Amino acid sequence: MLISFEGIDGSGKTTQARLLAEHLRRAGTEVVLTREPGGSDGAEAIRRLLVEGGTDRWSAETEILLFTAARRDHLERTIRPALARGATVITDRFADSTRVYQGVTRGDLAATVETLHRLMIGVEPDRSFIIDIDPALGLARGAARGGAEDRFESMGLGFQQKLRAGFAALAQDHPQRVRLIDGHGTPDEVARRVQAAL
Amino acid sequence: MLISFEGIDGSGKTTQARLLAEHLRRAGTEVVLTREPGGSDGAEAIRRLLVEGGTDRWSAETEILLFTAARRDHLERTIRPALARGATVITDRFADSTRVYQGVTRGDLAATVETLHRLMIGVEPDRSFIIDIDPALGLARGAARGGAEDRFESMGLGFQQKLRAGFAALAQDHPQRVRLIDGHGTPDEVARRVQAAL
Repeated sequence: MLISFEGIDGSGKTTQARLLAEHLRRAGTEVVLTREPGGSDGAEAIRRLLVEGGTDRWSAETEILLFTAARRDHLERTIRPALARGATVITDRFADSTRVYQGVTRGDLAATVETLHRLMIGVEPDRSFIIDIDPALGLARGAARGGAEDRFESMGLGFQQKLRAGFAALAQDHPQRVRLIDGHGTPDEVARRVQAAL
Repeated sequence: MLISFEGIDGSGKTTQARLLAEHLRRAGTEVVLTREPGGSDGAEAIRRLLVEGGTDRWSAETEILLFTAARRDHLERTIRPALARGATVITDRFADSTRVYQGVTRGDLAATVETLHRLMIGVEPDRSFIIDIDPALGLARGAARGGAEDRFESMGLGFQQKLRAGFAALAQDHPQRVRLIDGHGTPDEVARRVQAAL
C-alpha cells in the first residue's frame, strides 16, 4: 500500500507521516517512511537543486521536469522495491504536490503536468491525506524551523493560501483517494483523525 | 541562427565549435558559444548530476528527464535571449545527443524522447554538424584528457561504435539540417570542412 501525505509548507504533514508509520509498525506492518522531492540518493541530489536558491532560480517548466526526474528515481529505487516485498510505503509528498504547486503558479501548465505524469510516473497512491491548516500558522512554523530549504515559504502568505485552496479542490475532485484532515490541534489529535480516516 | 555540434565522446566537436565561433567572429558576427548539458547556471548544476558518478547512477528514464530539464533552462536563459538580440548561437551538443545516446541504450524510449522534446523544447538547430571519427580514437582522446566527467566514456568501445552509427543514421534522416563531417585530420583541416558545409 502506498500512502501520501500532502499539504502546504508547515502543515505538520511530516510529523503526521511519521506518527502513522509508528502506528502501523506497532501493529506489525513493515513501513518504509520516505519523502519528496528525495527519498533515494539521486532524488535527494535533485532535491537540493529544487529547495535551495532564489525563487526565480528555475522556470515553472524546468521545475516540473526536475520534480518528475526526482519522482521517477524515488519510484524506481525506493517505492517499487518496497511495495514488491509487501511493505507499506508512506511518502511525505508525491505527485499531488506538483499538481497543486504548479496549478497555483502556472495554471496553464496543468495539461503538461498530467502528460509528464502519465508518461514517466503513471502511479497514484492508494490513499492521500491532506493536512489542512491556516497558512499563517504554517509560515510561522516554517520560520521557527529555519534552515536553507525555504524557497517555497519565501513566496509568501498569498501563495500559501492559494496552495491550500488547490489542495482542498483536489480532495473534492478525488473523494475516494484523497482525504482532507483538519490539521489544527496537537499532533496526537491530528494523528487520531488520520487513523480514523485510513 | 542556432548551430549545433554533435558526435561521440572525444570526436573533437568541442574544438570545432570553438573554431567556427572564432571564424564567424572574425567576419563580424556576434557569437554565443555554449554547451550541453549546461550552458546556463541551472543547467550546469544539472550537468554535474549527469556526467559524474557510476554508469548506473540514473535509469534511462530519469536521465532523459534531467537532460530535458537542463536543455529547457539552457534554452530559456542562454539560447533564446541570444537569438532575440540577433546573435548566432553555437552549442556543443543539443537534442540530437539525447536522441542518439538514448536510442542506443534504450531504443524503446525513442517515442518518449520525442514526446518530451515536443512538449518542453520544441526547437531544432538551423544547422547541425556531426563530427565523425573512429570511436577507438575518441576514447583514447577522452582518456588522455582525464577528469571526473567520464561517465559515458566508461560505457566502452562497443557503446561508442553504436553511438557513431546512431549519429550517421540521423544525418541520413535529416539531410537538410544535419551534416556529417569527417573528423579525421588536423583541427584546421576539419574546420575547413565545417566552413565549406555551412
